[in-house]
Amino acid sequence: MTATVLTGTELAKAIQAEAAARAEELAAAGRWPHLAVVTATADESSAWYVRSIRRAALKTGLECTVHDLGADAEPAAIHEKLTELSADPLVHGLMLQTPLPSGTTLEELASAIAFEKDVDGANPLSLGRLASGLPAFAPATAEAVVALLDHYKVPLSGRQAVVVGRSTVVGKPAAHLLLDRDATVTICHSRTADLAAVTNTAEVLVAAVGRAALITAAHVRPGAVVIDVGTNPTPEGALVGDVAPEAAERAGSLTPVPGGVGPVTTALLLRHTVLAADRAS
Amino acid sequence: MTATVLTGTELAKAIQAEAAARAEELAAAGRWPHLAVVTATADESSAWYVRSIRRAALKTGLECTVHDLGADAEPAAIHEKLTELSADPLVHGLMLQTPLPSGTTLEELASAIAFEKDVDGANPLSLGRLASGLPAFAPATAEAVVALLDHYKVPLSGRQAVVVGRSTVVGKPAAHLLLDRDATVTICHSRTADLAAVTNTAEVLVAAVGRAALITAAHVRPGAVVIDVGTNPTPEGALVGDVAPEAAERAGSLTPVPGGVGPVTTALLLRHTVLAADRAS
Repeated sequence: MTATVLTGTELAKAIQAEAAARAEELAAAGRWPHLAVVTATADESSAWYVRSIRRAALKTGLECTVHDLGADAEPAAIHEKLTELSADPLVHGLMLQTPLPSGTTLEELASAIAFEKDVDGANPLSLGRLASGLPAFAPATAEAVVALLDHYKVPLSGRQAVVVGRSTVVGKPAAHLLLDRDATVTICHSRTADLAAVTNTAEVLVAAVGRAALITAAHVRPGAVVIDVGTNPTPEGALVGDVAPEAAERAGSLTPVPGGVGPVTTALLLRHTVLAADRAS
Repeated sequence: MTATVLTGTELAKAIQAEAAARAEELAAAGRWPHLAVVTATADESSAWYVRSIRRAALKTGLECTVHDLGADAEPAAIHEKLTELSADPLVHGLMLQTPLPSGTTLEELASAIAFEKDVDGANPLSLGRLASGLPAFAPATAEAVVALLDHYKVPLSGRQAVVVGRSTVVGKPAAHLLLDRDATVTICHSRTADLAAVTNTAEVLVAAVGRAALITAAHVRPGAVVIDVGTNPTPEGALVGDVAPEAAERAGSLTPVPGGVGPVTTALLLRHTVLAADRAS
């Protein structure tokens, strides 16, 4: 048995087409949806990711400005820039790219992102509202997990979902979104005693650790739906997921890396930005 | 085998004694720790609970005012009262008691509780910060679960914890607190397919549903530590937990109801209020 490949490209295109249509209408009304991205790193894969977001934004008819503060940026300077862009009426979506300079965290700084512009759900208020069942933008990657499952009509209610990884940007919000869809959700992490035993209970397995090939065939319950959130750069300059290719022997279906969660994440960021522009008075 | 009984009374006393000592010092400096409780219900067990908080507060040397808006209170009036008390420099801790009049929820109204006074962790910002690893008051009941486990030196790191119930006030924050302690955490709920199968994986089982005797012996892994958060009134006017008495045959240890999580919850509310008073300038 080889797993069905659950690509994200089709879904991403559909989301982007819808966002483009609405962006066009807003532009016709004199409102230009605008995503601002703040970066403060020399990390190559981060720069690559930001360029890909910008390309997708422009192609979709959104403005996209990148504010590169440099890898030596002080936390106070990042905070100030986020505050400034939060107050800028021409900016509708605002995200802070990771990694960040040592001595600060996304969680600490993201409070400076205005809630209504927090299109990547990084402000703790967004996560708290999400967990409380109140409207908020979810982190785009976490939302992409559920959007892909929906796109491929994977039932979630009453099913066992296991999320490997407990980050604030993916693992935890993905767990809340799956819980909202009535899945029974387990969160595993580096301290989990027998990871394969736990992941073998998963009808839906979400790998969001950021370690290449952490999930092997032995971790996968036969027939499971596996969503691979990892994007790990290889020495050769390629990207690989958290799931080893051999896992396809046991999985029922599996998202590829690249071309799975990634494009949907970018598309959702753009959708959120258009929504934020739509709501801005 | 019969389970060891993990009472909360000793721990509650220790927390209250510490809070009382600090309250005394603050009072000597002219600052009187003050907990304000807003209620809008005719529910008898709620009224009983509020009176018990007030008794404990006064005994601990804290002021405690109860603002009863009546069961017919409009959401706007509750919001206004919370806003007013949030701005009152003499109030250090502020909580909104449930149940609330129909047409509103704790999650919606609690945004009006100033974050620094949110001693029962009801504001979504508190939950989001908690989930993000940032300082915040946890909901007292959720924190009581982990405080009891700590008091009885139950190891959590790498162990399987199962939380039954996904409420914003208990299940979800308890899951985050257990995750912070490096447990592998599963959240179950009414839509979980085979509840007993899942709860039987639990080395630590937290029952937080609010349904008497939902957890039977068959739900308990032999030797498990069981924390019973339920407080369900019986027709005879007594309180029973979510765990059936027969579960003690399989559990290694078990918190009683009443006298388990309850007193620790109240003590933590008082500790939070004293901390909030301490931080207020």
